[in-house]
Amino acid sequence: MMLGRHVVVDVPTAAAADVRRPAARVPVPPPRPFLQTLWSTVKETLFPDDPFRAATREPTRGRRAFAVLRYLIPCLDWVPSYSLSTLRSDLVSGLTVACLAVPQGISYARLAGLDPVIGLYSSFVPALVYAVLGSSRELAVGTMAVGSLLFASMLGAAAPPAQEPALYAALAFTATFFAGAFQAALGVLRLGLLVDFLSHAAIVGFMGGCAVVVSLGQLKGFLGLEHSTHANDAPAIVANVVSQSAHWQWQPFVLGVCLLVFLQITRYISKRRPKLFWTSAAAPLVSVVFSTVLVYLINGEKHGIATIGFVKKGINPLSANSLLLSSPHTWLAAKTGILTGIISLAEGSAVAKSFAMAKNYHVDGNKEMIAFGAMNMVGSCTSCYLTAGPFSRSAVNSDAGCRTAASNVVMALAVLATLLFLTPLFRHTPQVVLSAIIASAMMGVLKVRAAAHLWRVDKVDFFVCLGTFLGVVFRSVEVGLVVAVAVLVLRILLSVARPRTTALGRIPDSTVYRRMDQYTAAQGTPGVLVLRVDSSIYFANASYLQERITRWIDDEEGRIRAAAAGGEESLRCVVLDMGAVASIDWSGTKMVEDLKNSLDKRGLQTALANPGSEIMRKLDISKVRQLIGEQWVFLTVAEACDYAYNNCNIGTELQIAASPDEMV
Amino acid sequence: MMLGRHVVVDVPTAAAADVRRPAARVPVPPPRPFLQTLWSTVKETLFPDDPFRAATREPTRGRRAFAVLRYLIPCLDWVPSYSLSTLRSDLVSGLTVACLAVPQGISYARLAGLDPVIGLYSSFVPALVYAVLGSSRELAVGTMAVGSLLFASMLGAAAPPAQEPALYAALAFTATFFAGAFQAALGVLRLGLLVDFLSHAAIVGFMGGCAVVVSLGQLKGFLGLEHSTHANDAPAIVANVVSQSAHWQWQPFVLGVCLLVFLQITRYISKRRPKLFWTSAAAPLVSVVFSTVLVYLINGEKHGIATIGFVKKGINPLSANSLLLSSPHTWLAAKTGILTGIISLAEGSAVAKSFAMAKNYHVDGNKEMIAFGAMNMVGSCTSCYLTAGPFSRSAVNSDAGCRTAASNVVMALAVLATLLFLTPLFRHTPQVVLSAIIASAMMGVLKVRAAAHLWRVDKVDFFVCLGTFLGVVFRSVEVGLVVAVAVLVLRILLSVARPRTTALGRIPDSTVYRRMDQYTAAQGTPGVLVLRVDSSIYFANASYLQERITRWIDDEEGRIRAAAAGGEESLRCVVLDMGAVASIDWSGTKMVEDLKNSLDKRGLQTALANPGSEIMRKLDISKVRQLIGEQWVFLTVAEACDYAYNNCNIGTELQIAASPDEMV
Repeated sequence: MMLGRHVVVDVPTAAAADVRRPAARVPVPPPRPFLQTLWSTVKETLFPDDPFRAATREPTRGRRAFAVLRYLIPCLDWVPSYSLSTLRSDLVSGLTVACLAVPQGISYARLAGLDPVIGLYSSFVPALVYAVLGSSRELAVGTMAVGSLLFASMLGAAAPPAQEPALYAALAFTATFFAGAFQAALGVLRLGLLVDFLSHAAIVGFMGGCAVVVSLGQLKGFLGLEHSTHANDAPAIVANVVSQSAHWQWQPFVLGVCLLVFLQITRYISKRRPKLFWTSAAAPLVSVVFSTVLVYLINGEKHGIATIGFVKKGINPLSANSLLLSSPHTWLAAKTGILTGIISLAEGSAVAKSFAMAKNYHVDGNKEMIAFGAMNMVGSCTSCYLTAGPFSRSAVNSDAGCRTAASNVVMALAVLATLLFLTPLFRHTPQVVLSAIIASAMMGVLKVRAAAHLWRVDKVDFFVCLGTFLGVVFRSVEVGLVVAVAVLVLRILLSVARPRTTALGRIPDSTVYRRMDQYTAAQGTPGVLVLRVDSSIYFANASYLQERITRWIDDEEGRIRAAAAGGEESLRCVVLDMGAVASIDWSGTKMVEDLKNSLDKRGLQTALANPGSEIMRKLDISKVRQLIGEQWVFLTVAEACDYAYNNCNIGTELQIAASPDEMV
Repeated sequence: MMLGRHVVVDVPTAAAADVRRPAARVPVPPPRPFLQTLWSTVKETLFPDDPFRAATREPTRGRRAFAVLRYLIPCLDWVPSYSLSTLRSDLVSGLTVACLAVPQGISYARLAGLDPVIGLYSSFVPALVYAVLGSSRELAVGTMAVGSLLFASMLGAAAPPAQEPALYAALAFTATFFAGAFQAALGVLRLGLLVDFLSHAAIVGFMGGCAVVVSLGQLKGFLGLEHSTHANDAPAIVANVVSQSAHWQWQPFVLGVCLLVFLQITRYISKRRPKLFWTSAAAPLVSVVFSTVLVYLINGEKHGIATIGFVKKGINPLSANSLLLSSPHTWLAAKTGILTGIISLAEGSAVAKSFAMAKNYHVDGNKEMIAFGAMNMVGSCTSCYLTAGPFSRSAVNSDAGCRTAASNVVMALAVLATLLFLTPLFRHTPQVVLSAIIASAMMGVLKVRAAAHLWRVDKVDFFVCLGTFLGVVFRSVEVGLVVAVAVLVLRILLSVARPRTTALGRIPDSTVYRRMDQYTAAQGTPGVLVLRVDSSIYFANASYLQERITRWIDDEEGRIRAAAAGGEESLRCVVLDMGAVASIDWSGTKMVEDLKNSLDKRGLQTALANPGSEIMRKLDISKVRQLIGEQWVFLTVAEACDYAYNNCNIGTELQIAASPDEMV
């Protein structure tokens, strides 16, 4: 139907001006040696950021070596030039984050089914490691809710934390080790692109789903219930809570709700007034202190308010010897590690990149992976479980005005102090405050607006997001992920298998050819059909493209036959605009060859416009270029149409048949 | 380095001519209702060939109905207009194919570990079904070597044909049924595109590998050995043959070699002289007759020449009741069926399409699938095993001048006659002649030339081919397939994750911008960097593209700084040529937004050239278009550069710094 606007136009002189100048022929690039091509491809695939560019710029060898060293150990970037003023701001931000880190660490550790103190350990050692190897300034290291949830659901099945805490902890350390090893491997092998395949839409849905599940999981804490369930889907959790309705208690519920409201209000304030960011940062600590004191005064244990109880003093004990590298559960731990490793990478690198963008400096994804990997591998040997760069914490860090990764060191030292001296104070801290902290943190993760935005911008993305969300909420975290990845890969394959072909027409009085369905003003050239292929041509779409192009031609000829009374010019030449064809493989060249042959049988001329150098090389090697003929390969569509118009005796019938009102 | 050719050029008036005409603004398409978009996408994905187009063209309802009927039952295309002359040529070709079908059928049945007569059955019923439903004229139905091999290797593991022939046969029928059901389902669901994902390269490698394995498997027959192995990799087969060296016999070997030479010579002749095609077609039958008579006369059984023995008379018995749809082996049968189903489809549709191309008529892949599916489902109920359209047989059919699918009917009747009257004659047919027939057929499948061509045209394709080949030869058929599919999917994902970005320059004295690395004559515009993105922008490549573009800009600024002495214009504006960007998703729009913001921070102007309508719509909804500003979205790169040149006060420094020799 879009071809209905065919009008007879005279070939503008502008086009003639561009044409048949030797410079304007499409060159065939000289054959490049295979290894060279291979190397450049590998380089482009794995080193898109050209990591050692900075080094090569340096004049002397010594400075070059130092540049490389600086690339490998990012802290060398800022340590030498570290000043007092920087220290001041890092101190402030570091301490602020610590206020958040201590309660959050304890909460998430409980969420993961681990001893609370492990949560504190995990904010100590890994933070130091990251300070040395990490290249982001704002990222604040710590445990993440989603990771903790995944640990609980995947490892808990093999070793219920309540029954076999020791085995469970060992499993957690092992999984952390595998996560670190996997992350480091990805970084060293420069496979950052794996993370790219987790689309933002999928992550939003995934995080949202986890948030719902985690928040529901806190009901248990709010109602002061004992028995939890290992199932991690919403229905099971709710059922479990309801089934214990006999044991519901109002005291922890009231306390919890009050704390939750307090936390939400502070978050709201800090959102509204960026200068008051510290309110939301300090709120968790405040509520912990307040509730602890309260419980201590009213002797809450007696009133059914469960407390954390004894938290042991001292810094991280070594846990390297408790890694289970050859047990029946090793494979499970590895699976958990790889899965959580990828997810924490996805969140971490997203956080690092977004802050780097805001402050306008560059973060190397692969280096981040190595830093994450190192901090998890070291962590797994020092009684820490999975750590990453959670957004909430990093946001606080950057709001508090951190300047370098040193803020992580400050936080680590603050946590160290806590470990050494303050842990006994948590004895009376009620568990419900932890539930409140978790729940309020999770509410920040539910991005309803983002989902709505998705619906408006991209329906497919929205359904990816929704599918992932529902998968996580109603089945399990793993199912949600599988759904997401499956849909995304399917989408890629489909988009590859069904590229778009469009008919082009000329924008009046110019040499510019554009899609007729987009530009209503575009006019077709009589006797010439210009088709544009919008993707690489290869095995996955070659046969489809051939069918589709044939159909374009059938439709066009049918239309002309219908309009024959009007003396419409019959089709003589088909011009393929190869401008958007990035690459072509054997099936592709064969397709072009077959197409050329079948067009010849129909008495139609085939012309190519603006093929890229790779295309030209392959068409040349496979002798298709010679088949089509040098003179039928053009630099621009305008030239092609112009040449076809003059050389396919178009316009001969025209003089007789055309009625004047069709002339423009 | 390609940017080194930057030269100061005056903005040509030709460009000015095209620009700032209302018609030349890039329109934002009106939002389309979601369901409409969805429907058109589905239609384009599943019905690219618009099957009922012919019907809609018909004037009266009756004729429309008939057109639909004709679409569903292709034989209605030729039956009404069937003439005596057509019958004559179909008779000739049908009988010729029968000469090939009978010995091949018996041979392949033995290859599949089935009773020889089942091979004959399989050339009877399915051929009739295809004659009714098939839309190809040349395709000759029959069993295929690769399918037989796969049956033997996959089903043989569960039920050794020698020990439990009954169970094995039942499994074979069941697998055939599943293959048919799967093929029909693909056809009905219009999922022909699944087959597209088996690239030609993979198929060449796969077939070649199977050919090698099958040929080696025939050594057993040539040497008159009893014990065979179930392993289907070359090493195991050779080892098995060598291990029995004590029992090697010279008589069958001599006979077999003579026959093989004879078959090869006839093939060679028919290749050289197309008019003598019948030599290769008749050769198998001739050699069977000759060897049978010979063995009968010299009483070969006594001299250790094993014969086929008794082959029972009569037409296909029903086998529907022996289908194992609920046995422990059902899943295995289903797996085998689906695998062989896809492979036979790949070969079959390739054959049908290539012949249709040669004779310039159209074959509908999905209809072919339904035909294949029907013929295998019916076949599985009438004691036939997997059938398809093997190339060798179809080639003979078309050489023999077949005109319609009726030649399949003729062949089927000839086979029927054989089944009714001639089977006793095979009593003395030596097994070695079957081995010779198979081996010589397989030699035709080894396409060394094609592989060499692949190496020249496309290295990746070559390695896909080689990997598949080696996988099949040294591990197993399944491994080979897995290798192929894995490499292909990986290739697609990589090509999606790492699209190419190139810098464009203007072809002198024109408004045409082309890749600087391809066109040595292309010149950059001072102060403007034109980048072209060569693929859709979405989650899989968004972050990569951002990094890559940033790197382009860094390099460019570095280059300018280096050439600063030469009074080179400093960078003011970055133009993104979106012409080749077919689609964009949320991550994509976010990427453009982030890029715009970071460029603003660097004091660079961002401009878009030639975005497609989908792109415009999404940029508009996500407010990115407004962020960039209407006036910075252009129809062509030339306009963008032109406008930027006049509005980014470029050329101000120029007047002072530039030395005359840089002016063109």
